[in-house]
Amino acid sequence: MHVAHGLREGRDEPVVVEAPVALLYNGAPFAVMMATPTDLPDFALGFALSEGIVARPEEFSLVDVVAREEGHALHAAIPQPRFDALALRRRAMEGRSGCGLCGVETLRDALRPVPRVTGSPAVRMAQINQALSQLAQQQPLNARSGGVHAAGFAHAGGLLVREDVGRHNALDKLIGAMAHAHLDPAAGFVVITSRASYEIVHKAATAGIGVVVAISAPTDLAIRVADEAGLTLAAFARGGALNVYAHPARLRD
Amino acid sequence: MHVAHGLREGRDEPVVVEAPVALLYNGAPFAVMMATPTDLPDFALGFALSEGIVARPEEFSLVDVVAREEGHALHAAIPQPRFDALALRRRAMEGRSGCGLCGVETLRDALRPVPRVTGSPAVRMAQINQALSQLAQQQPLNARSGGVHAAGFAHAGGLLVREDVGRHNALDKLIGAMAHAHLDPAAGFVVITSRASYEIVHKAATAGIGVVVAISAPTDLAIRVADEAGLTLAAFARGGALNVYAHPARLRD
Repeated sequence: MHVAHGLREGRDEPVVVEAPVALLYNGAPFAVMMATPTDLPDFALGFALSEGIVARPEEFSLVDVVAREEGHALHAAIPQPRFDALALRRRAMEGRSGCGLCGVETLRDALRPVPRVTGSPAVRMAQINQALSQLAQQQPLNARSGGVHAAGFAHAGGLLVREDVGRHNALDKLIGAMAHAHLDPAAGFVVITSRASYEIVHKAATAGIGVVVAISAPTDLAIRVADEAGLTLAAFARGGALNVYAHPARLRD
Repeated sequence: MHVAHGLREGRDEPVVVEAPVALLYNGAPFAVMMATPTDLPDFALGFALSEGIVARPEEFSLVDVVAREEGHALHAAIPQPRFDALALRRRAMEGRSGCGLCGVETLRDALRPVPRVTGSPAVRMAQINQALSQLAQQQPLNARSGGVHAAGFAHAGGLLVREDVGRHNALDKLIGAMAHAHLDPAAGFVVITSRASYEIVHKAATAGIGVVVAISAPTDLAIRVADEAGLTLAAFARGGALNVYAHPARLRD
């Protein structure tokens, strides 16, 4: 039986829980993610914001969380115009069988436009190093089981952290937690334990985050999207050093 | 401009390429994966085998690879009954808006039945340690850019390795490469640089692989699927030690 926390006893040690989490809007299923079923209200709101399904937290309300042996279903209500836009997007993604020529439209749909990030203050290296050190301390699931990713938002009041078996889910949970805490995405920066992929940078920019610092490597497409979005992207942030791949102007010594 | 190899110069060093790769069967798009566009024929065949879209390599033929700035489209031909089954599966995944009750059917669809693995020989710890050591030497993309996953198949003739920015893509490429090389999935074992998630174990079992050894952590669902499939699952394989999570009978000292 699945239970809504993040760890379960394995053969002789705790292992992280991974379960299907279905996201439904106005009663219609949109996606199923394999995720760690913790902080589900944060995940639901954060996914809707980072995917541009809603533009503001006020447009979103979580109406039900259904827990079953098979997984969890998160039911949200969104305004009708947002739902119509989503239905169009789904149809655009799915209804390409008439093309049959080259699949290029399918590819184009995979790379949605990214909004431009404005604002976000300057960040000093000392702040980044402090956030990375705090992040290493604030991963209770990973400390017990390993194999768990974390995303943190460094702001004036400290570091807000969320964990998940999937790196993009960790970021979604963080974005939802930021909204629930009324933290301005432009008034801080994000640190992640993972790589910086296309998906991570796209989600961050869509949520209005201006600075992303990854512990592991970036991909070329992540750099390209960061360039386009005006997002500051740093990676390989280890041992007090990092590489900057896009928009270095926000970083200070 | 995208080019079909795995690395690109970043600001001052190579970064791994990540691009949309569309998978189309008989002209109809099925999925778009974010992947490193290397070994695409292996990827196309491996994905079809590991997802149970075809049961045997002979049922699959790659008819076209279209490279565009937006990404790559892999066009395959599969037998009509396989295509019909796939269309049913897609409809089952997408057509749930009539339910609107709890999303549970959506969740059930996310966890497809896994076939039972038969065969696969005993594996000695010395073989595993040798395979892990070879795997560390056979990652040219990762050596240059970091952030790249690898999957290897240890068999009588050595270790076959494929790399990708996504861990499940690396496994799909490996499964395709094994089929292209006429290697029996039951006559060896798989080592992966990543975690063992649900997806990894499900794909391996579907492809007929009986032993999976992961360097990082397992998830609870991966263990459950390995149990059900009769697949030997080991993880945290580092420094000559590992933990066994399912079906230890195939492992020898």
